[in-house]
Amino acid sequence: MPIIQMNLVEGRSVAQKRAAVAAITEAVVRSLGVRPEQVRIMINEMPLEHFAVGGETAAMRATTAKTPDAAKET
Amino acid sequence: MPIIQMNLVEGRSVAQKRAAVAAITEAVVRSLGVRPEQVRIMINEMPLEHFAVGGETAAMRATTAKTPDAAKET
Amino acid sequence: MPIIQMNLVEGRSVAQKRAAVAAITEAVVRSLGVRPEQVRIMINEMPLEHFAVGGETAAMRATTAKTPDAAKET
Amino acid sequence: MPIIQMNLVEGRSVAQKRAAVAAITEAVVRSLGVRPEQVRIMINEMPLEHFAVGGETAAMRATTAKTPDAAKET
Amino acid sequence: MPIIQMNLVEGRSVAQKRAAVAAITEAVVRSLGVRPEQVRIMINEMPLEHFAVGGETAAMRATTAKTPDAAKET
Amino acid sequence: MPIIQMNLVEGRSVAQKRAAVAAITEAVVRSLGVRPEQVRIMINEMPLEHFAVGGETAAMRATTAKTPDAAKET
Repeated sequence: MPIIQMNLVEGRSVAQKRAAVAAITEAVVRSLGVRPEQVRIMINEMPLEHFAVGGETAAMRATTAKTPDAAKET
Repeated sequence: MPIIQMNLVEGRSVAQKRAAVAAITEAVVRSLGVRPEQVRIMINEMPLEHFAVGGETAAMRATTAKTPDAAKET
Repeated sequence: MPIIQMNLVEGRSVAQKRAAVAAITEAVVRSLGVRPEQVRIMINEMPLEHFAVGGETAAMRATTAKTPDAAKET
Repeated sequence: MPIIQMNLVEGRSVAQKRAAVAAITEAVVRSLGVRPEQVRIMINEMPLEHFAVGGETAAMRATTAKTPDAAKET
Repeated sequence: MPIIQMNLVEGRSVAQKRAAVAAITEAVVRSLGVRPEQVRIMINEMPLEHFAVGGETAAMRATTAKTPDAAKET
Repeated sequence: MPIIQMNLVEGRSVAQKRAAVAAITEAVVRSLGVRPEQVRIMINEMPLEHFAVGGETAAMRATTAKTPDAAKET
């Protein structure tokens, strides 16, 4: 423990995801006083069509958005 | 809030999934009195081999079933 | 299938939650073409201290907010 | 009920996963006194890059490990 | 790995839950070829009001059911 | 997005959990380049009887352990 699940829409690089799990682990170790090897992180990566805010999927938002990263802006 | 995760076996079209997130969002807005943009929905889509009832995966059921949609009948 | 998990901060009445599961079930039946008894919903209700946006828990937001429902406004 | 989610890193065969859901179902039926058809199992399979222990993903561990199965050793 | 989450409605004894985690762990060790200490199980226990089938919560079903265990019969 | 769920055994103070959500949020903002208000964190806190490693719950381990924090040492 702790066991952490992070849900993301697709589009991050391997380097970004590795940086995220390292930074989250370090944050948890520091704040909860656990050892690094006690921290488990699972990433659940979703296609843009599988995440919705306000009843619209991120894929729908990306189509009408001005910037390519708009789908992540929620 | 609310944050909703919907687990589905694969086989639904994009149109069906978009209809589902729109309808669920509307249902939550109406029943819980939140604004649409507060409702987040994540879809987790599984291959037929990754969902089991009674110790048999949906893929196993589909093989022996009379109708092609039998795997979803649980 | 589908199996749905809805995460909520505490504060809704039993009547509201019953209305929500009925409405969500109806929405899923209509949009995905399943039978009502195929739809399972699990509610995960969290104390205000266990949900955070922007690094602040809903309990922290409620303390400084003008309206009592502010904690749910995210 | 019960509804069980099993998170695995990729690499198990279909036969292994079918054996696992059969064995888990049997274990739950025996210990909790439910009928087999009440037990639902969802498998969530992750790429090695999406599971981390101690801030390192299983993919990073596999690269430096002596045996090919080392990524699963956590 | 594996990391397993088991969702249950409330009502099982500590002894039953201990038997379940022991039996599930043994089932996973045998079928997937992992060591016992690699298997983590989290139990998520819900009040009867927080689990619904067909749009009705288990609490609603228990009220109208003939036997006290009817709420678990889904 | 991202939506993060952190599973913990009970025993941490409110201050520790607030520090954890602040630190995790900051870690995600820095590593994934999102804005703080895009990061949602849900904490799922379990009694010691609801988390098991190697088929033994944390409550069982706490009983036989030398130090009171032993239950968290996994």
